[in-house]
Amino acid sequence: MTVNERLNQLQSYLEKQNVDIALITTPANVFYYTGFQCEPHERFLALVVDRKMEKTTLFVPALDKDMAQQQSSITNIIGISDEQSPFDVLQDNVATDVQTVGIEMKTMNVFQYNHMQSVFSNATFTDVQPQVNRQRLVKSKEEIDYMVEAVHIIEKVYEEGIKKVKEGMTEAELVAELEYLMRKFGADGPSFSTIALFGENAALPHGAPGSRKLKKGDFILIDMGVIKDGYCSDMTRTFVFQEASEKQKEIYNIVLEATNAGIDAVKAGVPLKTFDIASRNVIKEKGYDAYFNNRVGHGLGIDVHEEPSIHENNEEIAEKGYVFTIEPGIYIPDFGGVRIEDEVYINEKGDVEVLTSFPKELQII
Amino acid sequence: MTVNERLNQLQSYLEKQNVDIALITTPANVFYYTGFQCEPHERFLALVVDRKMEKTTLFVPALDKDMAQQQSSITNIIGISDEQSPFDVLQDNVATDVQTVGIEMKTMNVFQYNHMQSVFSNATFTDVQPQVNRQRLVKSKEEIDYMVEAVHIIEKVYEEGIKKVKEGMTEAELVAELEYLMRKFGADGPSFSTIALFGENAALPHGAPGSRKLKKGDFILIDMGVIKDGYCSDMTRTFVFQEASEKQKEIYNIVLEATNAGIDAVKAGVPLKTFDIASRNVIKEKGYDAYFNNRVGHGLGIDVHEEPSIHENNEEIAEKGYVFTIEPGIYIPDFGGVRIEDEVYINEKGDVEVLTSFPKELQII
Repeated sequence: MTVNERLNQLQSYLEKQNVDIALITTPANVFYYTGFQCEPHERFLALVVDRKMEKTTLFVPALDKDMAQQQSSITNIIGISDEQSPFDVLQDNVATDVQTVGIEMKTMNVFQYNHMQSVFSNATFTDVQPQVNRQRLVKSKEEIDYMVEAVHIIEKVYEEGIKKVKEGMTEAELVAELEYLMRKFGADGPSFSTIALFGENAALPHGAPGSRKLKKGDFILIDMGVIKDGYCSDMTRTFVFQEASEKQKEIYNIVLEATNAGIDAVKAGVPLKTFDIASRNVIKEKGYDAYFNNRVGHGLGIDVHEEPSIHENNEEIAEKGYVFTIEPGIYIPDFGGVRIEDEVYINEKGDVEVLTSFPKELQII
Repeated sequence: MTVNERLNQLQSYLEKQNVDIALITTPANVFYYTGFQCEPHERFLALVVDRKMEKTTLFVPALDKDMAQQQSSITNIIGISDEQSPFDVLQDNVATDVQTVGIEMKTMNVFQYNHMQSVFSNATFTDVQPQVNRQRLVKSKEEIDYMVEAVHIIEKVYEEGIKKVKEGMTEAELVAELEYLMRKFGADGPSFSTIALFGENAALPHGAPGSRKLKKGDFILIDMGVIKDGYCSDMTRTFVFQEASEKQKEIYNIVLEATNAGIDAVKAGVPLKTFDIASRNVIKEKGYDAYFNNRVGHGLGIDVHEEPSIHENNEEIAEKGYVFTIEPGIYIPDFGGVRIEDEVYINEKGDVEVLTSFPKELQII
């Protein structure tokens, strides 16, 4: 599916819902509909589908206009310089006397919203984000190819990265090696801040790598991913350095069983909570549920966290084309933690395909 | 100034303004007032200063609660798990029958805002972001120390990084080397996606490093910074590889003059636009103003882009304690570009101090 076909789907939706004009302001969504990748920081970025004036315009920071022209499928591009008010520029270039304006309510901030209410002073505002998310949830064949490529890179990083592990190195030093390998193997960058945690630090699901030095018997928890051509990967493996205790092995094998149980439950047509519960139950049955207090997984694609959310109350039905992680863990304060995270895809037959293939059995390195 | 003193300043403001309860939801601001560094992604994070119930509570994603307890100055911490509604948790734990609620209007999204209007159904909402920004604008001695450390690291990266430059290497490979050095020299990570652009690519102010290979006579534009202990650095230097043409030297020297003119204009008590204009005029006088279409600088600190904005219409008065960049450039499509970016600080006497010291004369490497 081309970016233009995606935009056509959005336009059909807007027509059906009688939305006169829609502003897409999430950078990831602008990329999805135009091919233009932009990090505007505090500057204004918007793809405006103007059904009243029958035109689609891309508003970009002036300094990114050349790049927008190179990358975007939209030819009608307006640059906004730093001393201009984006709301004035918008007002001068789109239909403002409209009934209904579509915005992304989880992206647009209250400051912008107040200005939009002045620009479109007679309009009511409606949320088009659910439609955009529905489109992005179902990955096309081309998108899966990009995601597989991002997985390939990160798996090469694991393979080479664990060879760099040595006694006395710090978590931060290991991160330096891993992120160097990401670039070396062709990544555009990490998809999120790389996590490498040793020993008791592995008990922090979102811990920050620091000066903790690696020693014999430590857990080594590595959670990392890359962006390649706009698509993310995300994968976790936990290793033990030199020698594993019985308790470490026990916890590891429970988490491994939980990851596999989650994966085995994945298919189209059942509620998303099914996968969380299948995975969580393994940990619960072994009596470790007090040490696992987050959802089993999250969707990913252009963003490293996007829909669907795989949590135990999510009644939404899994569909073909969904891609998400399965990543249960056990985190014991002052002792350490284990997380094993795979990426799965519900294919055209409605069956699960595991996109990640790096070995999951306990490796003592 | 400790985080508690900062919080006291905020509380005094809220008292004066009769704001009953304030929700600080920007992660950088939560860090500023509590010391807790968190990337909540789509999860809910809020520091709630509840003047009615006379308590201050930190709401964090459940999986980050341990880390919050370790890092935060606030002891009253509530974890919100993935299957809970953050708005329900909020409702159960704060005073909701209030008159005025303070929020950060450039951070809170419309989705959250709509929920907040249900939680605080009788309240009016007011923007506390200007107050927070005013506090953050004026850096304390301790903050300057952190920022200087982040500058020291990036200057070591420049020093070692340019030794890695060699013919035929790609932009992406150079980025890999630079980011490796950042970690090696103790950075917590890059403060933004590192930019290294060769030849004609240097004409893109926000270009993405790719597969362009370095060859004799190329510009090498490097714009990078690190985060260290929560504070950012940001610095640009442009080099020429092996041999510089007369045109390259001409452009380089105009930009160098513009950077210096901007810096020389910096002092407390005059409008911020003064610095932009002083710098921009150099480029204008030489006839290159068509090739410079962005502001001269931006503030930085906890964020790599924060207030103040140094643009030609900004009438706000510069004050002691401000830290910002001066970064004019000339970008000529299909030819290349030059940017020279320093960080400056307005010290306690109201005078300019340049925090960056890496040489600015043209280096042919």
